[in-house]
Order: sequence, then structure tokens, then C-alpha cells
Amino acid sequence: MMDVPLNGWLLFDHAETHFSDVEVVTANADGTVHRCTYGDVTRRSRQLMRVLDALGLANDATVATLAWNSYRHLEAYFGVPLSGRVLHTLNLRLSSDELGYIISHAGDAAILVDSDLLPLLQEVHALGGLETVKHVIVFGDELPDVELPGLASYEQLLAEQPATYPRTEIDEQAPFGICYTSGTTGRSKGVQYTHRSTVLHALTISTGAGFSIGPSDCVLPVVPMFHANAWGVPHAATMLGAKQVLFAGSLDVGRLVDLMIDEDVTVSTGVPTIWLEVADEFARRGVVPPSLRHVVSGGAQPPRSLIEKFRSFGVPLLQAWGMTETGPLASVAWPKHHMRSYDEDRLVSEAACQAGLPLPCVDVTVRADDGQSDLAWDGQAMGPLLVRGPWVIDSYLHGDGGDRFDDGWFATGDVAVGSPNGYFRIADRTKDLIKSGGEWISSVDMEAALMGMSEVLEAAVVAIPDAKWQERPLACVVVREGASVTLDQIHERLSAAGFARWQLPQEFERLEVIPRTSVGKFDKKLLRAQFTSEGSAQ
Amino acid sequence: MMDVPLNGWLLFDHAETHFSDVEVVTANADGTVHRCTYGDVTRRSRQLMRVLDALGLANDATVATLAWNSYRHLEAYFGVPLSGRVLHTLNLRLSSDELGYIISHAGDAAILVDSDLLPLLQEVHALGGLETVKHVIVFGDELPDVELPGLASYEQLLAEQPATYPRTEIDEQAPFGICYTSGTTGRSKGVQYTHRSTVLHALTISTGAGFSIGPSDCVLPVVPMFHANAWGVPHAATMLGAKQVLFAGSLDVGRLVDLMIDEDVTVSTGVPTIWLEVADEFARRGVVPPSLRHVVSGGAQPPRSLIEKFRSFGVPLLQAWGMTETGPLASVAWPKHHMRSYDEDRLVSEAACQAGLPLPCVDVTVRADDGQSDLAWDGQAMGPLLVRGPWVIDSYLHGDGGDRFDDGWFATGDVAVGSPNGYFRIADRTKDLIKSGGEWISSVDMEAALMGMSEVLEAAVVAIPDAKWQERPLACVVVREGASVTLDQIHERLSAAGFARWQLPQEFERLEVIPRTSVGKFDKKLLRAQFTSEGSAQ
Repeated sequence: MMDVPLNGWLLFDHAETHFSDVEVVTANADGTVHRCTYGDVTRRSRQLMRVLDALGLANDATVATLAWNSYRHLEAYFGVPLSGRVLHTLNLRLSSDELGYIISHAGDAAILVDSDLLPLLQEVHALGGLETVKHVIVFGDELPDVELPGLASYEQLLAEQPATYPRTEIDEQAPFGICYTSGTTGRSKGVQYTHRSTVLHALTISTGAGFSIGPSDCVLPVVPMFHANAWGVPHAATMLGAKQVLFAGSLDVGRLVDLMIDEDVTVSTGVPTIWLEVADEFARRGVVPPSLRHVVSGGAQPPRSLIEKFRSFGVPLLQAWGMTETGPLASVAWPKHHMRSYDEDRLVSEAACQAGLPLPCVDVTVRADDGQSDLAWDGQAMGPLLVRGPWVIDSYLHGDGGDRFDDGWFATGDVAVGSPNGYFRIADRTKDLIKSGGEWISSVDMEAALMGMSEVLEAAVVAIPDAKWQERPLACVVVREGASVTLDQIHERLSAAGFARWQLPQEFERLEVIPRTSVGKFDKKLLRAQFTSEGSAQ
Repeated sequence: MMDVPLNGWLLFDHAETHFSDVEVVTANADGTVHRCTYGDVTRRSRQLMRVLDALGLANDATVATLAWNSYRHLEAYFGVPLSGRVLHTLNLRLSSDELGYIISHAGDAAILVDSDLLPLLQEVHALGGLETVKHVIVFGDELPDVELPGLASYEQLLAEQPATYPRTEIDEQAPFGICYTSGTTGRSKGVQYTHRSTVLHALTISTGAGFSIGPSDCVLPVVPMFHANAWGVPHAATMLGAKQVLFAGSLDVGRLVDLMIDEDVTVSTGVPTIWLEVADEFARRGVVPPSLRHVVSGGAQPPRSLIEKFRSFGVPLLQAWGMTETGPLASVAWPKHHMRSYDEDRLVSEAACQAGLPLPCVDVTVRADDGQSDLAWDGQAMGPLLVRGPWVIDSYLHGDGGDRFDDGWFATGDVAVGSPNGYFRIADRTKDLIKSGGEWISSVDMEAALMGMSEVLEAAVVAIPDAKWQERPLACVVVREGASVTLDQIHERLSAAGFARWQLPQEFERLEVIPRTSVGKFDKKLLRAQFTSEGSAQ
């Protein structure tokens, strides 16, 4: 067989040669829509490759983006790595201090930035966080009047370059991109993807075991391109010639649903909180986007009621699981063929409510507490989840976090339960488990039960210290507008969901909103800190 | 990223761990149905690995199969390569002389054989074709009373072995399997797949650019497992945990359609002649299998009328293109997303009637006659089709056929036309083009037009020598039962389809059936020989 390296050119070339007529649509933050094609994107990507050469950046330099989802960000997704350099997508929700640390740690030589994020970059600069950065390139035609190193306009630089660039030979083990992942303690750590891992991930997420997408699809990743490469959707869609709709700026659910309808979106990906809002919007309008085949939900456990609601729309919400460290996609909860004969309740319990079936090439195992033996997949035993595969990291950038690697496996920090039917579910993050009276309580399970209450919009459960029990669960609840909820109702619901008396929370906090981390997950660290200190102050 | 080799264990392990409850159904030639699961198949594959070790076969020995599609054949698909050995699938439609040549050329040390094919193997033996073969293992419980080297019963051998076998380290560049492809002249040539090419092919054909299959599917490959690995479907389905239905023995269209309905088949793959029969059967019954999502047609150009008929059933017939030398799958004609707005006629012309869009990672190019420059994709220019990719061969086994490789590309022997929209179509096999009056006539285009006539069941067009014109087309036509057709009608039809007066055949032959090659394609070599000699005898 031919010795063809699995590098980014394999993703890029088809878009240029066979899909130059396919659209890439960007919904700008200002409400306008930008339309272009893969013909435009690939031409401009080649111009960008030339720009990076012309700026004199080292052949293996790290080039960052600080940007929303857009066609320009997509150009950087290919222009940077295909020039042999490494793309570092910065999370624009991080603090300027953390951003500065990450930029220096990765050694970013240039940053491509959306103009509305310049104030953030100026803060980073003021803190001394741009010491490695020689070039700040602003996505746009104009050059704002700010003090930043090597400031230049993206469009002006592109206009000076021809759209020709030779297909370079890139080893498949060469780095493609870097994402940092925020830990629960300490600084963020860098995950470096290779060309090989990126191509294999793109292929696998496009299968019927992944997102099931092809040239006939229009995909809308409601996941930031700065977070784990928007789950790899931009790579896969470009490779396949699927139409892409990119949503720039903060989310507006009405506009999102408009886009799904207007652009004939077939597959969309996002976190459960997005799908909660989208489900409400579908219900409010009484309309489901007609071509939407399925949506994929990842990043946290979606409530069962949400899964059921999407099924009632005729649009399955497929649960997916993964981490920045695992490609990110590692599993999707597709029902098996024979489950067609199951009744709705059984199908939802045994498949849809699971974290999924591991993707092809990805191995998962649930370890016993001894760290040596594997637990049986009996639907009961709960233990640390370990993962292995061609798009799973074997070390963090510059050797950080070495304790996460164990004999060829990556310790995810999740606690999981494997079922006899081959599916697994995430019981909790190790750090979020509540140890009460010597037994474990799963915060995820309790949240799912609470979010199944019609009165509850969102719920987060955290451990608070307890003199007698060691830890006790505290339920933090956002009540729906106009509704109310009592501790008795909460106890009733949790008992019905199978929680024992000793597991029930003794109190609950009513919040206006659950605080979120930079990637949109519940910020339990903040909740614990808040209610622990309040508690101790009492 | 972890250094995980892309080898067959990645395809096999999930079936064992996560899909042990999923069925593998074999429709036996005697009308019975055998049902088992991936749990059974993987357990027995491990027993087979032990058998091969116990027989003392070299670690890298070549082990052949001479068998119909069945669960046992599937066990060999994994048991042989995962033990480090090389699987050689023998084409049971070849002559005993050719089989003997191939077995010796590949150096097969053992052959797994269906009992009904023993007479064929005895013929090979009588011709001295089993010189390298030490073990003939008969798929079944009993040992027939025949004279063959090292005769043993598969079931008896398996029963002696435990179902444990360690996951061996196999380099991804190691050979996985061999298929021979029959040339138009001379002996068959061997194509050797690697573990890497097999895994990459399995991933890619499972994407929405390929067959679009996943764990929710039930696949029925109506393609022999001895021919180009049944297009890779058994590898992919096992990897994905899709239910598999394997049809053993010669085709019975009524039984095939029964199976599609009874087993809830979602995706099926086969050659156009199968789909012609299936379409008639659907029409006769007035029933289309309710879960059938699409069928894939490869191996030859399907007539437009067939594509239209399947569309009218609500089951798209997707044209695919490839060769044993290209994985085999290299392209599928999925419509692009924006083609949803096209009217039916335009969609069928611009997408469905094309050989397709190249799969991710596969590059195709249409060369000019000079062999140097590439032709423009203008929908007009016709030239040799060349292919490149990680599952395309760079040499035949033992260095045969070296003239097919050109500067990193494989010369397919097909003549193609690329369109501005990125699709390409096969105009002809180079050797089947008709050169008349200094111009080329595409036999494929003429056949498609003829098969669009309601009176015509099948048509093959070949060149016959002509003193004045150099070559002239001869139309060989199978007329539908009860119908008739005249030369005038044929001229009328071809003129309507755009053929010029000088291109029209001056005569046609009415045949009972078009002769087929060992892999079910029209045997034009035989037709040319037949009508050329008859012509010269007149």
C-alpha cells in the first residue's frame, strides 16, 4: 500500500478540489451573516500560509488564535498547521492572567485575534503575558489604534500574498495543534494533537459510530472553535465537504434556531445547557428544523427529561463523552440495531442515558480501587475510567501532569460504571463525588434527578464538609420562572429516583444561575468554595 | 498522542467487549439460517488463532479461504491476520488452473474451504496446484472422504482449543490480507493489504462519505467475501458493532429480499445486476424493506433508469467506484447538501449518475494523453484515471504489473471525465473504448442509453474490427421477456441520448444472457472474441 502520511493536507485538499462550491456560513455577532465557500476558505488559507512565511516565523512556530467561530478562524485551522506550524487555540473565557501564562508556556510567536477581543489581549499585554509574541494579527480590514506587538491587519496581509502554496511533506507524527485544558487545581495544561491524531479523529467522528456526517450534511457546531477544536467538527466537515455554519459571539438561542431552519442544518453539536434552551425554543415555536437529523450533546450529563424531549421532537439527542485529552471525542451513545424493538423507556435507560459506546480505535476500562485490576461491566461497580487510543494523549505539553498516565492508559478523572450491554456511563468526576458516611454519592445522578423536576431549570450538587458525615450533598437549584420548589419536594423526587434516606441533601440553595467555567460547565469548585466559606462563617 | 498501531485488533476488540450481544446472521445455501453473535465469532476467532499456532504454521504464513459468505469466513477474516498471518481470499469462480497458479504464487500454507467447494479444490490438486499447501481445513464438523493434503475438520480443530489468545503487537505496516485481481491479459495479480490500510479503509467507508454505517445499522453485503473483502464491509461492521447478514451460496433474489425485510437491513452493497433483479422484485411485491436506508452499487455503471427506480422507492442507490487495487472503495456519489434544491432530473445527472466524490484521503486525477499534465475538470475532457491514497497499492505482489505505477499514482485502467462540480464519472475501461474513425466512443455511455429502453434488460457494447472505420460498436442486447426490439428503435434511442450518426452501431446481437467474469462483470473479452471470430468466419 502507498506510504501516504496522515497529515492535514488530506483534510484540506478535497475541500479545494471537489467542494469549492460548498458554503461556509458565518453568523456574525452583529447579526449579519457572511457567506463564502470552501473555494474561498482554501484559497485564503494558502494566502495565510504565505503570510506566516513572509513574517519570518520559524517553520515550527506556534501561532495562536483568540477568536470566535468564523470562516477566518477556519482559515487559521488549516493555514497554520499546513505551513508546518502549530495552531494554538486560546480560550477567550480565561482570565488575562491565565491567558498570559498559557501564551508564554506554549511559546506563541503570533496571535490571530478578533477585533472585539483586543481589550482582553491588551490586559494580557499589561500583565507581561505577550513576551514571546512578535505579531498580533487582527481579523479584519482595519488596524485599531492600540499598543500591541507587531500589530497588523489580517486582510491587508492576505491581500499582499498569492493563493499558491506547495503541498509540503509533513510527517504524520508532527504536531498539528495545541489546546489547553483547565485543571481543578493549579495552572492549565497543554494537550498537543498531531497530524495523525487529527486525521484519524476526523475520520472516526464522521462514521456512523460518531456524528454520522458526510457531503450531504450541513453541520452547526454550537461549540467554540477555541475549545477542543469544536470537537473536531471543522476538520471533519472540511474533509467531507459538508456545509458548515459557524456561530460567532455569545449564544442567542433564537438566532441559533433561525439558522438551523434557514441553512437547513442536519447535525448540530453542543453542551446540554444549549440543548435545554433549544428545546424550550422548539417548544415555544412549535417548530423543529425540518432537516435536523440528530443533535450531539457532550461536556456534561444531559438530564433524562431533555433526552426524552428531543426524542419526542423526532430528533434524537445523542450523548457523547470525551475530553480535550481524548481527541476530544471518545464515545457516542448510539442505540444498537436490535434496540429498535425496545420500548421507549428501556431504550432511553439502556442506551440514550449512557455516556456511550467507545468509538472505533478507542479503548476504555473501569479500574478497581486498587488501580490494578479492571472492574466487571455489571452495571453496578463504579471506578476510575481510563482511556487509550490513537487520539488520546500520552503526556501533557512540557511534561505537566505526569500522574495521569498509567501503563499506557490515560486516567480521565471520571468515575464510570460499565454495563453488560457494552455501554458505560459517567457516575461523576472523581473530585465531585460526595463521600458521606463512608459511602459514595454521585452528584451527576442527583443532578439528573433534580433536573427531571418540572419546576427546576438547572441543578448542581456539591459536597460540603460535615462534622458527622464527613461530607453531605448540597443541592444548588435554579427554579423556572414563576415556579417554586421546597425541600420536601426535592426529597420526594430524589427518593422516587432511588436515593436512600441517608443520601438526601439536608438543605438546598436557590440560585439565579449556576456559575460556569470558561468552557460552559458548572463551576463546582466555585460553588464549593462559596458555600463552604459561607458555612464556616456562620 | 499515544503511539497505538493501526492493526486488526482495533477492529476486533470492540466487537468482543461492547457488541458481544449483536447478531451475525448467515443465510446458508441450503435455505436454513444460522444465527450467532459477535461474542461467538470473536471467541471462535481466538480459537482459530490457536489452531493455526498448534498446526505449526509459520508466524507469517499465508492462509487461504475458498468459501462463500458466512460466520466461519468472518472468523477467518480476523483469526488469520490477528495471529500475525496473512489471509488470502480465493475467488471460487476462477478455473482450477488459475486457482492453482494463485495458490502457488501466494505460497498458501493452508486453505480453509467450504465442503461444497472440495471438488474444485480436488481439481486444483489434480493439476498440481496445492504444492505449497500443508493443511486443508474443511468448514464443518465432518471430514469428507477425499484425498487432499493435511485434511482436517474446522469444528474439530476449534473444539480442541481454548478461546484465549493474547493481543499480539502487530506493526501497522504488516500484511493483513491478499486478494488477486484478474487482468484482461495474462495471469491474475496479487494485491496485498496492510493492517494500516485495512483499518483506515474500514474507518473511511463507515463515514457519511462512504457507506454511512454505525452501531445502529444492519448491513447485508451482496458482494462475495472472496472478492475485494466484500468491499471491506465485514471489517467495518465488526469494528462498529453493526449487525451483519451474510448470504452464502449463489444469489436467490427472492430470498435476498426476504432477508432484507426479516432482518431489518438498513444498508446493502452489491453490483448493478443484483440491483436490477432486486428492483424488479420490489416492484413485483409492491414492498420495499422498511428499514432500508440506501443501497450502494459498485463494480460497473448502473443504468440511469435503475437509479431513478430506486429513488422512486425512496431508497437512494448510491453509485460507488473502486478496484481491488484501491481498497477497494475510492468514491461514492453522495449528493452535496445544496443539491437538495435541485429538481430530480438535475440531481440524478449531476450527482447520482456519477462515479462519485473521492473518499477522504483518496486523491484522483484525470491525465492528459501525454501522461504528464492533468486534464481540467470541465465535464468534457476524457483521460486515464489515476488514484493515490493510503489504501491504494504501490506494487502488486512479487512485483507483477510494474507498468501501472506512475510517480506515486496508480493507473486504474479506467478512462474518466471530471466535472466542474467535483464529481467524476467513468467513461470506460481503457480497453473497452471504441476507436472509430479516429474518435472515441464510450461503451459505458452507450450501454447506459440502451439499458434505459424499457424493452432492454441488459446491454453490453464492444468494439469489432472494421476495415473502413478501424473499429465499430456492436450492441449485445438481452431483451425483456415478451418484448422485442429493432435496430431502428436502437438508433432512435441512441440518437435521443446524444450519440452522433457516425457513432451508431450498424448491427446488434440479441443474446439470452450477457456472459459474466468471475466477479460478475460483463465479460467483454469473451464477447469480442466471439463476435470477432464469427465475423471473420463469415
